[in-house]
Amino acid sequence: MEWIGGGVTAAKGFMAAGMHCGIRPNKAKNDLALICAEAPCTSAGLFTTNKVKADPVMLDMETIRGGHCQAILANSGIANACAPNGRKHAEEMQALAAKALGLSPDKVLVGSTGVIGQELPIGPVRDHIGELKALLTEKPEGSDAAAHAIMTTDTRKKELAVRTTIAGKTVTIGGISKGSGMIHPNMGTMLCYLTTDAAIAPDMLRKALLAVCRVTFNRISVDGDTSTNDSLIILADGLAGNPEITAENENYFAFVDALKTLCTELARRMARDGEGAKHLITCTVSGARSKEEAETLAKSVIHSTLTKAAIFGCDANWGRVLCALGYSGVDFDPKDVDVAFASKAGQIEVCAGGVGIVFDEDKAKKILSEEEVEILVDMHEGEAAVTCWGCDLTYDYVKINGDYRT
Amino acid sequence: MEWIGGGVTAAKGFMAAGMHCGIRPNKAKNDLALICAEAPCTSAGLFTTNKVKADPVMLDMETIRGGHCQAILANSGIANACAPNGRKHAEEMQALAAKALGLSPDKVLVGSTGVIGQELPIGPVRDHIGELKALLTEKPEGSDAAAHAIMTTDTRKKELAVRTTIAGKTVTIGGISKGSGMIHPNMGTMLCYLTTDAAIAPDMLRKALLAVCRVTFNRISVDGDTSTNDSLIILADGLAGNPEITAENENYFAFVDALKTLCTELARRMARDGEGAKHLITCTVSGARSKEEAETLAKSVIHSTLTKAAIFGCDANWGRVLCALGYSGVDFDPKDVDVAFASKAGQIEVCAGGVGIVFDEDKAKKILSEEEVEILVDMHEGEAAVTCWGCDLTYDYVKINGDYRT
Repeated sequence: MEWIGGGVTAAKGFMAAGMHCGIRPNKAKNDLALICAEAPCTSAGLFTTNKVKADPVMLDMETIRGGHCQAILANSGIANACAPNGRKHAEEMQALAAKALGLSPDKVLVGSTGVIGQELPIGPVRDHIGELKALLTEKPEGSDAAAHAIMTTDTRKKELAVRTTIAGKTVTIGGISKGSGMIHPNMGTMLCYLTTDAAIAPDMLRKALLAVCRVTFNRISVDGDTSTNDSLIILADGLAGNPEITAENENYFAFVDALKTLCTELARRMARDGEGAKHLITCTVSGARSKEEAETLAKSVIHSTLTKAAIFGCDANWGRVLCALGYSGVDFDPKDVDVAFASKAGQIEVCAGGVGIVFDEDKAKKILSEEEVEILVDMHEGEAAVTCWGCDLTYDYVKINGDYRT
Repeated sequence: MEWIGGGVTAAKGFMAAGMHCGIRPNKAKNDLALICAEAPCTSAGLFTTNKVKADPVMLDMETIRGGHCQAILANSGIANACAPNGRKHAEEMQALAAKALGLSPDKVLVGSTGVIGQELPIGPVRDHIGELKALLTEKPEGSDAAAHAIMTTDTRKKELAVRTTIAGKTVTIGGISKGSGMIHPNMGTMLCYLTTDAAIAPDMLRKALLAVCRVTFNRISVDGDTSTNDSLIILADGLAGNPEITAENENYFAFVDALKTLCTELARRMARDGEGAKHLITCTVSGARSKEEAETLAKSVIHSTLTKAAIFGCDANWGRVLCALGYSGVDFDPKDVDVAFASKAGQIEVCAGGVGIVFDEDKAKKILSEEEVEILVDMHEGEAAVTCWGCDLTYDYVKINGDYRT
């Protein structure tokens, strides 16, 4: 397996484009993205578990049931959630893209991200869909422009692709995603669009997406708020020429492996680019009695507001880590727990057997001053280990979210 | 029922004192509090549900089983949680207070609050317990000094008392509490010490404390972190002369009513004084199918990081309120939900039937600029209503918690 360029257009047969159509006031910022496969695709999607779902999410949940979607039109700036004429505008976005691409509407998915509750200005989409389609045809490798078009408060684009070999054939999986605030995914995560040329049956594609989402996007948290718009979609056009994956065999696991590698890195980058974040926090809980308990414990740590603020201050305040483990709901004996902090600057043990140990504060500060910081917890109760990702809580998070709408 | 002064020494027969003994470096800050009743008491306590409990909490849980504690010695600065010699120091605090007061150790409760994981310096307590006892005798009305002695990052002391009449007798309940960060109580909340001269049997006292805690302290959240040290303790010396409350009769409900009035205001002040807070947020969810659902929904709103940041920015971003309702776990139809913001500057409807309505942004900003802000949610699904309290997320919260230990 290797990392390659090209993002969502790295896999054979996929085109993408992005542009500024006018939903956002800032003309320098792309706000409309189009992804399309040349050939019919197998498709699968996972969506937010929030009871309040944006209209494009509800429409996609119906559309994707067919399992053969081929294109995605997405905008940033307005979430089209709890908004007047939400359903109507989502359907018009679908119809506009279908017409421009010469596809039937039930082959087109739509996505929106941005402010909740305001009406989506459909005019700019209507006026520019032709231009966007032209861009797609002229410069089909517009993954970068599409990745930028779905960004909101993100400071870095998330665009990656991996290449692997399945049954002797080169298979590529690429993706773009966005996500900066309101990140605490459950079953799906913000907007993440994946494309692959693997040949895979719809049920196996869905199974693979679900399995990978559980251990990647569902293990990150920025602020504990699960968005109304979370969508994770994969399109597979089969052009790699591998024998179609129809069962949980060696080929399926090779595909899952590549998908997991891609999604792990997209998820990490989403956590790293959490609103206002200065640090990526990686928490690994090992020695737990089960994967489920390890995950609950690790999530409680990365979600702890106080731990996040301590990491922002490069303060080795491990007591807050122990506190977060304690209220996670998992039963354990605090006297078994060890805690250490690590980064590329080194590793330092700070708590052994549930009790603080004397440590070099200067060394700890140096370790925690790195951009990526690890919190290592050993429960000494079993064999299970899980890693979750989060980010620190900073002045900028408060600033960004104190006045997001204006 | 009326509000009176005197805090924890308002009820007949209670004495309190506070001083700086040297656990904290700042000599201007009290760090040791003593509360004692002249007569034997009935007592009840509720403690943190965190698996990681501070040693004084574990010791109190054993001590209070007898139901007849009479004194409390508490320090701030060091939490004595996950700390070397934690049990030993908690027991020594208990023994020191018992000896100074001439009580048996099983009549004395202890409490600690502050940094987790560092050893409690017991020397200053040992050296100053005599002086503290002398203060208690000379100036028994030292509720103010005791309230200050348990404060950590609190900016305002919490010290209140109410007077009511039970069976023709004047009954007083007073209390002091602290709590600023790590506030997301579950069964108890930070340090809160209540005293009353009501005559009440141990089982009824415990029942009353539990019932009131559920609808007061358990309905506030500052940061979602449940502390290792939460303790809510009540001592009742019976000197009011009312017939002892031994059943759920009229007198019991009069007592619960007064206790609830007192604890509601202590809880509100704790939320208002949340670390760095500029606003008290009151969220009332009405029209829910049950009290349980209303509480889950209201808690989800006051706990939403994004909603808290929006209130800091005086931004009427009601979409985040709807989003928080949506991921609360309660099943409901978003199309039924109305949202309004209110304060003493007025009220403004911002969402009707799950969809945004056009509103006057200037008026909304004015309403949200008040210190106390209300979020009013109507689910239109039933008759139940619940109010919860929280605070906004500010730069100062991040600042305070980015470097708490130093």
